[in-house]
Amino acid sequence: MIEAAAAGMGKPVYKETNESKVTTPRWEYQTVRSKVTTLEEAIKGSGLKDGMTISFHHHFRGGDKVVNMVVGKLAEMGFKNLHLAASSLQDVHEPLIDHIKNGVITEISTSGMRGELAKEISHGLMEKPVVFRSHGGRGSAIANGDLHIDVAFLGAPSCDPLGNAVGYSRSQNAKSICGSLGYALPDAHNADKVVILTDDLVPYPNTPNSISESDVDYVVVVDSVGDSSKISSGAIRDTKNPRDILLAQQAAKVIINSGYFKNGFSIQTGSGGASLAAVKYIRQSMIDQGIKASYALGGITAHMVKMHEEGLIERLIDVQSFDKVAAESIKTDQMHKEVSANEYASADEPGSATHYLDIVILSALEVDVNFNVNVLVGSDGIIRGAIGGHPDTAADSALSIIVCPLLRGRIPCVVDEVTTLITPGSSVDVVVTEYGIAVNPRRPELAEQLKKAGLKIVDIHDLKDRAKSIIGDAAPLPFGDKVVGIVMNRDGSVLDVIRNIVD
Amino acid sequence: MIEAAAAGMGKPVYKETNESKVTTPRWEYQTVRSKVTTLEEAIKGSGLKDGMTISFHHHFRGGDKVVNMVVGKLAEMGFKNLHLAASSLQDVHEPLIDHIKNGVITEISTSGMRGELAKEISHGLMEKPVVFRSHGGRGSAIANGDLHIDVAFLGAPSCDPLGNAVGYSRSQNAKSICGSLGYALPDAHNADKVVILTDDLVPYPNTPNSISESDVDYVVVVDSVGDSSKISSGAIRDTKNPRDILLAQQAAKVIINSGYFKNGFSIQTGSGGASLAAVKYIRQSMIDQGIKASYALGGITAHMVKMHEEGLIERLIDVQSFDKVAAESIKTDQMHKEVSANEYASADEPGSATHYLDIVILSALEVDVNFNVNVLVGSDGIIRGAIGGHPDTAADSALSIIVCPLLRGRIPCVVDEVTTLITPGSSVDVVVTEYGIAVNPRRPELAEQLKKAGLKIVDIHDLKDRAKSIIGDAAPLPFGDKVVGIVMNRDGSVLDVIRNIVD
Repeated sequence: MIEAAAAGMGKPVYKETNESKVTTPRWEYQTVRSKVTTLEEAIKGSGLKDGMTISFHHHFRGGDKVVNMVVGKLAEMGFKNLHLAASSLQDVHEPLIDHIKNGVITEISTSGMRGELAKEISHGLMEKPVVFRSHGGRGSAIANGDLHIDVAFLGAPSCDPLGNAVGYSRSQNAKSICGSLGYALPDAHNADKVVILTDDLVPYPNTPNSISESDVDYVVVVDSVGDSSKISSGAIRDTKNPRDILLAQQAAKVIINSGYFKNGFSIQTGSGGASLAAVKYIRQSMIDQGIKASYALGGITAHMVKMHEEGLIERLIDVQSFDKVAAESIKTDQMHKEVSANEYASADEPGSATHYLDIVILSALEVDVNFNVNVLVGSDGIIRGAIGGHPDTAADSALSIIVCPLLRGRIPCVVDEVTTLITPGSSVDVVVTEYGIAVNPRRPELAEQLKKAGLKIVDIHDLKDRAKSIIGDAAPLPFGDKVVGIVMNRDGSVLDVIRNIVD
Repeated sequence: MIEAAAAGMGKPVYKETNESKVTTPRWEYQTVRSKVTTLEEAIKGSGLKDGMTISFHHHFRGGDKVVNMVVGKLAEMGFKNLHLAASSLQDVHEPLIDHIKNGVITEISTSGMRGELAKEISHGLMEKPVVFRSHGGRGSAIANGDLHIDVAFLGAPSCDPLGNAVGYSRSQNAKSICGSLGYALPDAHNADKVVILTDDLVPYPNTPNSISESDVDYVVVVDSVGDSSKISSGAIRDTKNPRDILLAQQAAKVIINSGYFKNGFSIQTGSGGASLAAVKYIRQSMIDQGIKASYALGGITAHMVKMHEEGLIERLIDVQSFDKVAAESIKTDQMHKEVSANEYASADEPGSATHYLDIVILSALEVDVNFNVNVLVGSDGIIRGAIGGHPDTAADSALSIIVCPLLRGRIPCVVDEVTTLITPGSSVDVVVTEYGIAVNPRRPELAEQLKKAGLKIVDIHDLKDRAKSIIGDAAPLPFGDKVVGIVMNRDGSVLDVIRNIVD
């Protein structure tokens, strides 16, 4: 409408054109501007091609419906050789086995996997090894370009026609809730194209929002993005197991007597019954001693929400809501803050929340005599877990506590050498078992302090020997020569590899 | 600590090193990780060099203390030829005159300027013309690289040692408040280095935060970042002027009878007494007719907050809090959402909030017979205003209303041709004066509707003639040949130029 004489910087000429201002009322106008389309059209529009990388988040954990739906559609549309980069995978993703066999998916990056998919991959299903990254490591890799995402497919419990999306819904038609979308944010910010799948399309503006319209290209309405009742599935459950409760109570004693249990401390509990429960058992001491936490990080649970609402924990910093209570809390409580995987645990960002963490309680599949921890591969050599934030939080926190039974059934959990190295022993301070507490020799002052408090401090070699004396020497695992998984360090280097298991 | 045999993908070797885990308690640990430093050290650390671009936000408007403080320090440190890219400049920035004379600042980009600085620049103070952009245009230019910022200096009423910053403080030591930091967000996201200046350093984590630590390199504690009592200065005031009230009431009648006044409508009021006040005069009709607005955008004022709290406006979307009531509201109300300049008004983002705007009421220094609007240069040829979101909102909204008196003293406001073109007439629908309402001939259906409602619809040429009949023909302005300002279109093209004025 205006022809600017930019070159000569003269007065611009006002020129009438036929372009007319949109005069339709807003509701029609909105339709015109909507990003809402079908999944197939979104895929076509995204420019996705064979060989490209697609990404997903795992905030619905075992209840996720997006991965299978999208990969099913991609298979139907004839895509091949795709790289599936999920923040994590669960039992529910078993259908990927067929897509791998059919060549639709030929590469996987994830934090972990479980169930049949993991079993098949452990047996050598894929040509290319699966790349395992920690949550912080994935955030960094996406931000620095190591993991380039072509098209992100992100499920959201509500979204407006422009793409403002969030992990809950305020509408009457709400179908799902997952709370924080923290693991989806690096994808939303960095992917070339972003498709939001939602089961509740709400009117613009869907504020406050997690994912901004600025990052979103397409919005696809689906029947369901996830089953919220399964958020607390996989490794997350409120334990009733007496051994877990014993471990949690012991961990609480370590915390209370560690020297880090002071007003303003911060805490995170990893997944796993005992670690999640530990926070319950410091509550009374906090009340008795008048100690308040500045923040709880995670991995936010109903326990933490309760203690926050009681005034015992000032702020909640939430990269992933571990249950529905936490997911509901983030919706209504300003002091319950969603953070991205990078703000949570990026090693590239000295100020990410893990760097300020005083205390983390984590679980383990195996701990070895060098305090190295494995949370990914079972003692049968089969992948059955996830790295999660384990190495991130262990490395950055001031006090990292591993809760781990000496044995699980006939399987020793304290061993000579971990099957797969996930968290280096140099990051691990304390190992709590039901047969005593081992303190890393790097932390003699801590061992001294805990001894003074009357806790049973043992040498980790004695724990290993005790396990061995009960179970005997385990036969070496029948690993083959094929590398089926690569474990990445937070800094993008290779930490360990996983080889195929031979039955 | 771990030497990974990445190449051969063999088992990594665990190697003991002397690196020890940090064992200091968190409060000491925090000090180590802090980004807090002095302004001088932050400047040195940022790598700022002569000729580079520095940026600032204007959320404190007339109360801003950051620009003068930082540029003063840069002058003291001997920097030259800097490009100052502020989201806007005010009367308070008069000290820049000396810095321009001394060669510290040789380029300026801004939305507007006022007072002595503007007067001197209008008279040819600078060699290079000042580049004026709209708020949406600036956001786009920063995001797409047209305006590359080397170092952003962003004032914040609270910040933690890592850089989590926000436009208010929850601590007892709060000194200042400005509410939304929307215009600072493109700078925080895109500048090579980001320095937060704060007058309230609070403990980590300062959540909820606007600017994330991930974007911040240095934190500098200063006595004051701004005088909050002056947020409502400049063009923002609650009018008691009877003519402004009349104009506001007329604008309200236009809104109510426009056809856009329906349940779920959205509205923005620009700065200027009459436009800000218009929203007050639609309130009763909203109550009477049972109409609720889906959102108010802006430029949020105490009036809007009140109507939001009454339930008349569902959501507030705030790129800039226009008064302290609005700034306080964003602190406590989840439905009062801060947005970046890009989310607000970027032309590159079809989903930015302005695109969904039904109604905007804007002011003007001049309107011409082609409905072109000038809000930047006075009828004396001297710069005395700011583009702000004027062209963004006028272009994107479904109904744009300009409120403008026929005369200001002896100065006609409806003219043959605007002194400087800021908002093209094709974006303007209605001009409200105290002598009648002119409707753009592009909108005949709107003119018809308003006439039916009994409003006095006049031809804009008659308004211009009336002004002329009272004042007579104005002598042509004594412009020189030097280009002192360039007005950019939202898309990065040149819309108009401003020449020097000769006394």
